Amino acid sequence: MSKVKVDFAKLDRAFNPRCVAVIGDSGNNDFRWLRAQSTFTGKLYSVQVNPKTVEGIKALGVENYTSLLDIPEAVDLAIVAVPRAVAHRVLQDCIRKEVAAAHFFTAGFSETNSEEGRELERRLTETAEQANFHLIGPNCMGIFNPRLGLRQNEGQYTGFAGPVGFISQSGNHAMNFSLLGHLQGVDINKSVSFGNGVVLDSADFLEYFSRDPEIKIIGMYLEGVKDGRRFFRVLREVSARKPVIILKGGRTGGGERAIASHTGSLAVPQAIWEAAMRQCGAISVANMDELVDTVKALLHLAPVRSKRVGIIGGSGGQSVAVADAFGEAGLELPPLTRQSYDELATFWTLIGGGYPNPIDTGNDNRKEIKRILEILERDTNIDNLVLLILLMPGNAANTAQLENSINLMVDMRKKTLKPLMAITTFFTNEDMQQARDVTQKLEGGGVPTFHTIERGARALRNALRYYRFRGTVEGV
Amino acid sequence: MSKVKVDFAKLDRAFNPRCVAVIGDSGNNDFRWLRAQSTFTGKLYSVQVNPKTVEGIKALGVENYTSLLDIPEAVDLAIVAVPRAVAHRVLQDCIRKEVAAAHFFTAGFSETNSEEGRELERRLTETAEQANFHLIGPNCMGIFNPRLGLRQNEGQYTGFAGPVGFISQSGNHAMNFSLLGHLQGVDINKSVSFGNGVVLDSADFLEYFSRDPEIKIIGMYLEGVKDGRRFFRVLREVSARKPVIILKGGRTGGGERAIASHTGSLAVPQAIWEAAMRQCGAISVANMDELVDTVKALLHLAPVRSKRVGIIGGSGGQSVAVADAFGEAGLELPPLTRQSYDELATFWTLIGGGYPNPIDTGNDNRKEIKRILEILERDTNIDNLVLLILLMPGNAANTAQLENSINLMVDMRKKTLKPLMAITTFFTNEDMQQARDVTQKLEGGGVPTFHTIERGARALRNALRYYRFRGTVEGV
Repeated sequence: MSKVKVDFAKLDRAFNPRCVAVIGDSGNNDFRWLRAQSTFTGKLYSVQVNPKTVEGIKALGVENYTSLLDIPEAVDLAIVAVPRAVAHRVLQDCIRKEVAAAHFFTAGFSETNSEEGRELERRLTETAEQANFHLIGPNCMGIFNPRLGLRQNEGQYTGFAGPVGFISQSGNHAMNFSLLGHLQGVDINKSVSFGNGVVLDSADFLEYFSRDPEIKIIGMYLEGVKDGRRFFRVLREVSARKPVIILKGGRTGGGERAIASHTGSLAVPQAIWEAAMRQCGAISVANMDELVDTVKALLHLAPVRSKRVGIIGGSGGQSVAVADAFGEAGLELPPLTRQSYDELATFWTLIGGGYPNPIDTGNDNRKEIKRILEILERDTNIDNLVLLILLMPGNAANTAQLENSINLMVDMRKKTLKPLMAITTFFTNEDMQQARDVTQKLEGGGVPTFHTIERGARALRNALRYYRFRGTVEGV
Repeated sequence: MSKVKVDFAKLDRAFNPRCVAVIGDSGNNDFRWLRAQSTFTGKLYSVQVNPKTVEGIKALGVENYTSLLDIPEAVDLAIVAVPRAVAHRVLQDCIRKEVAAAHFFTAGFSETNSEEGRELERRLTETAEQANFHLIGPNCMGIFNPRLGLRQNEGQYTGFAGPVGFISQSGNHAMNFSLLGHLQGVDINKSVSFGNGVVLDSADFLEYFSRDPEIKIIGMYLEGVKDGRRFFRVLREVSARKPVIILKGGRTGGGERAIASHTGSLAVPQAIWEAAMRQCGAISVANMDELVDTVKALLHLAPVRSKRVGIIGGSGGQSVAVADAFGEAGLELPPLTRQSYDELATFWTLIGGGYPNPIDTGNDNRKEIKRILEILERDTNIDNLVLLILLMPGNAANTAQLENSINLMVDMRKKTLKPLMAITTFFTNEDMQQARDVTQKLEGGGVPTFHTIERGARALRNALRYYRFRGTVEGV
């Protein structure tokens, strides 16, 4: 659809800029864009003509020019926050200045479903296409590169980078994914919110991220695709090399109406979308939490080869809940082999803890967790191992046991080819902090850890879907 | 099935005891039962014969006797933690002492699937039945009455009571519900974990709680029912008077195997169970979070009469997510009436925020939230109102606006017959604390508040199911 020929060298400049210009930031906005770039490690300029606003900008310590063209060096990325009526003129300046790419935060285009908005968007698009100019947006939050401190919002982290690329039609979701993910140890390498996507579209960013060796896995939030044929071709190619996990908005009638007024995207019937996802080998998820969880699972898990899961831990009702949740996610909890049961019987403390699967260790048997874990690892009926850690109030005495479990899992991760994961449930604010600590330790050792049973089960199921597709492609 | 004739006066004594005896607590267990009762406001005795253990009990400041029969006053509740081999003898003592009821924590019975376990359970059951003795359990955590400080675990709260009764076949789930619920403002009035339920069973506790005027709503966790005909008859009667919300374990093959070794319950095919729930007017939920959320919704919401929801707040992708989540829960987000759109048009700030439904207020329109809320309240297409509050990092400046939104919702709750709820999403640890504060304020004013869109949507859907059933019954 877009007539721009994507130049990856330009995108490299835009995503790793040495010089950024923020155009039209203002006090009405509390200088949100300049503030967001307060952590930017490169050179930051402002462009603003209103003398009163310029005072505020200088108070922030940012050098201001009244025209982009006056900036005395090459600009890699322009962040444009001017009113929509001025957007076209600013675009012309960006083209003359040979800015590598511009992100238009400016909104009020086709998403307003007004003649004026559509016309303004048409002009913007046409001018960018004629100049082969790399326009991101409009109506979007642009680029997040945490390592360089280039941010979509001043609430985002900075100073380090993870392995995840995120491509989002919604600025909101781009922000949320970065924050929710960070809480779960899922950190962004580069992220882009592209809004109406009139020039550069999802397929362009997908192709670009697929070539970035720092990006190991790609998450997306989409409301629609403009050039379906090209998008699905690119998606299929990329999914064969890196996991691509997609949350699609507009899955229901109400959602469709909401996307129409958000990015002006046309709805795609959900069944058709899901079929296309399967054909392309992309993973489809139902909400932001599942997106974060699935990225996390694929970052850490060894390749998932089957639905057969062995679960250790929990007791009583919790064992039932975990069995049901994994079953409802489409996974299986088979009985162990005869040999495993025989081995367990040599030391098992019978009363109050059975050992079908899940293996209930809410009792003295927890002391034997090393042997239990090893038995399950050897068991030929079991292909994935899950440890359930219940943090209960007043269990501080069990800190040593907990540390022991964590160390066992981290050791096992180095030795086994079977995917390993943990679930850490908690019920009080104090235990939540402990759950976070446990999660960090386990994930530091490559064992992905989830805070609810249901979320862990769905993440494992989604990872299995990904590796099944890979298996097919590789002829395994 | 049980041949005991339930005596509610005895249950009154057991659930509101003046005198409790803990039998067989020990240091191996870190005196878990005596510690749990350290907050008990009545008289607490211990019964233990081991002199070394008795030292530890005295160190806790608890008076010990070597026989239950020696306790110099009437005992309302015995908590029995002896080894299974001694359980029958202790039961005989309880009968002789005319204890109102005994809770047997002791495990190792039919749930072990061993001949010995089954035989011990048979003897226990037979003796209790012959004496019409009110035995709770075995293999369970017994009674939680927070107002009296009578607890299942020392991590539970005490000193106040809520409106919720909880009946659980799992001690684990009884604990978890009390803790998870408390975090969400859902507090227990009385709760019971009854394990194998050989004498007193779920139907007995359900009938008892239905007569308790302090209990406004009943939650249950079940793995099976022994006397199905009686249980479903009682459930139908109780559901017509108080909401009953049931989480059933063993919904999958793995879950069925887990319940067999947990409480020895027989599996019920899930489709049959769901049909029975609908016929009885009980609400079936899929996990512990949904159970807490649904109880919360039914505690606070005005009667829910239709699936038509109007949603205020959020912006862009968040509006899409909320529309999809409510749609996927089976609810509807209809367009507003022409009149409402005309009223909105008089003050609406067009750019970057549409107003189909959800009404996007991630912009200047948030200032007009009072008018928007009032327009939706009057709108004849809208029967339920949802406010979406996004807590974002660096939004501290909006505290006044947030307070304003909270006050508006609480005021509106007093004026409208339409159900009102809020969703407070957050993305950082700091914002979580704020989310908790917001939740408390809103729920203090009768507006139930949920931490994820999906959970809020399902809770509203479940409340609608309950009121639909009530409507049918009352001929509305």
